[in-house]
Amino acid sequence: MSLGEFDLIARYFTRPARRAALGVGDDCALLSLTPGMQLATSCDMLVEGRHFLPTVAPQHLAHKALAVNLSDLAACGAQPLAFTLALALPRADEVWLAAFSHGLFALADAHDCELVGGDTTQGPLNICIGVFGEVAPGQALLRSGAQADDDIYVSGALGDARLALEAFRGTVALAGDAVARVRVAMEQPQPRVALGVALRGVASSAIDLSDGLLGDLGQVMRRSGVGAAIDADAVPRSADLAGQPLAVQRECTLAGGDDYELLFTAPPSAADTVRTAAAKAQVAVTRIGRIQAAPGLHLQDANGQTLPQVYGSFDHFRT
Amino acid sequence: MSLGEFDLIARYFTRPARRAALGVGDDCALLSLTPGMQLATSCDMLVEGRHFLPTVAPQHLAHKALAVNLSDLAACGAQPLAFTLALALPRADEVWLAAFSHGLFALADAHDCELVGGDTTQGPLNICIGVFGEVAPGQALLRSGAQADDDIYVSGALGDARLALEAFRGTVALAGDAVARVRVAMEQPQPRVALGVALRGVASSAIDLSDGLLGDLGQVMRRSGVGAAIDADAVPRSADLAGQPLAVQRECTLAGGDDYELLFTAPPSAADTVRTAAAKAQVAVTRIGRIQAAPGLHLQDANGQTLPQVYGSFDHFRT
Repeated sequence: MSLGEFDLIARYFTRPARRAALGVGDDCALLSLTPGMQLATSCDMLVEGRHFLPTVAPQHLAHKALAVNLSDLAACGAQPLAFTLALALPRADEVWLAAFSHGLFALADAHDCELVGGDTTQGPLNICIGVFGEVAPGQALLRSGAQADDDIYVSGALGDARLALEAFRGTVALAGDAVARVRVAMEQPQPRVALGVALRGVASSAIDLSDGLLGDLGQVMRRSGVGAAIDADAVPRSADLAGQPLAVQRECTLAGGDDYELLFTAPPSAADTVRTAAAKAQVAVTRIGRIQAAPGLHLQDANGQTLPQVYGSFDHFRT
Repeated sequence: MSLGEFDLIARYFTRPARRAALGVGDDCALLSLTPGMQLATSCDMLVEGRHFLPTVAPQHLAHKALAVNLSDLAACGAQPLAFTLALALPRADEVWLAAFSHGLFALADAHDCELVGGDTTQGPLNICIGVFGEVAPGQALLRSGAQADDDIYVSGALGDARLALEAFRGTVALAGDAVARVRVAMEQPQPRVALGVALRGVASSAIDLSDGLLGDLGQVMRRSGVGAAIDADAVPRSADLAGQPLAVQRECTLAGGDDYELLFTAPPSAADTVRTAAAKAQVAVTRIGRIQAAPGLHLQDANGQTLPQVYGSFDHFRT
């Protein structure tokens, strides 16, 4: 079976434009923002072996490729509008494409985010999505806004994606039903879009957790010019991860990567507002530490004992 | 030498935000459009062996990757604002990156188009650029606006990029200085941004020539619901190409691909306005045929003799 580029686009990636002024099929897509709003945009490129395992189902791969981009919008508190998809494929496999398209549109529709354009080509498997959202000027959540004494929160539970990776690598033992659960965390993260929107005007800074908690927190510290104290035992984790040795728990929660939860800061006076925002977004949030004026990271356990900081950040060029 | 992802971004791809509200370094970039304007966006993914030869210099590769995207904005008549760059590299090679970055910013600066974000990862070489421009509602040039009796124009000269490719493949003989000239056409196309902007309100339809004249014209015909008559001998070509056998000239001009010139249509009454727009943009434009109400393509030579239509469109999955 040989599908040409135009057939491919028409069959699997073209739907009528909804909100977009012009969707798939011309040289550019055209979008109108709500008057007065700023465009928020981000792009992420996913490569086999770096960002996903060759065993991943195409519908989950599509989900993840879009989810990691929506997660960037969430971290800015932007409302998703649209996205573009550039796809390099070794061959045009209709079964693969049908599943990929299904997974892609399922997540896109859940966030009312419209596919407006893209590119397809033959080549080593590579998925590059660009995402567009909108946010009022001055309302975007930035990495640079954390202040001394702000509380540090994370959404959801951390470390399951890394636990799944380690289970696939064979470095941890995990029962079959647990593997199935943590695999969902690895392959089908839920971008915290509603939480990001609810935190506008509440959080002082935010970032999405893609490279591991401590590495991503380091970005906030660096850009905000602050330090932080983290209670490693307070970092939320699933029951599956809590059943692992403490060293595995710490590695997975503190430096796991691929969490796609939000880390954010807010002043202690906003604690109730944070709880209200989390409830509105129907996402659990947990306080895990505090921003400090003095630079550097202070990592401790629940007893206040200082822990050695041996956890690296995931680096797509170094790991 | 081992450069991490953050070092890479900081060293080669971070410059202070200019017009953007927020540039490289946060989860999203933030852009404000001119009030009342629509966002025009496009993305193109370039893969080694499909879109460029392994011998291309990194600064030329960067130029081309951005140029093909700016060419999409040009085809819509949009004014460039900003772009994102996602880059998969086999390894972080500083010499390569310095040259790539140089070529990228040289073209970006020439069009006042700002790098606002992106992604870098280890993987088979892949370059995906997303580009953002703005255009007033209703002013964008579309593929769908061609009307019966409209004149058909192209900018510049066609076929040199394909001639260069054939010279590299060894299927045509070309003197060394001619190789150098046509290689510039292949590796460093000049996006016709000023012409696209000047044609707003003048051209009835437009498309950029990336897959070959007849294939791209076919897109305009299909989306406009019209046919076309083309004088193959009127299609502008360089002196280097004009020195080749007629069959090579026709293959290169009609189905060459990678031209990144504009094809556009305008009513005969707008002929003077078209000339004025071209002069303003300092780009040659040539009338090569006419839109017809009857569907289908009628290809003829300068004597009005019908030519067999044997020219295919470049397809990134079929070639």
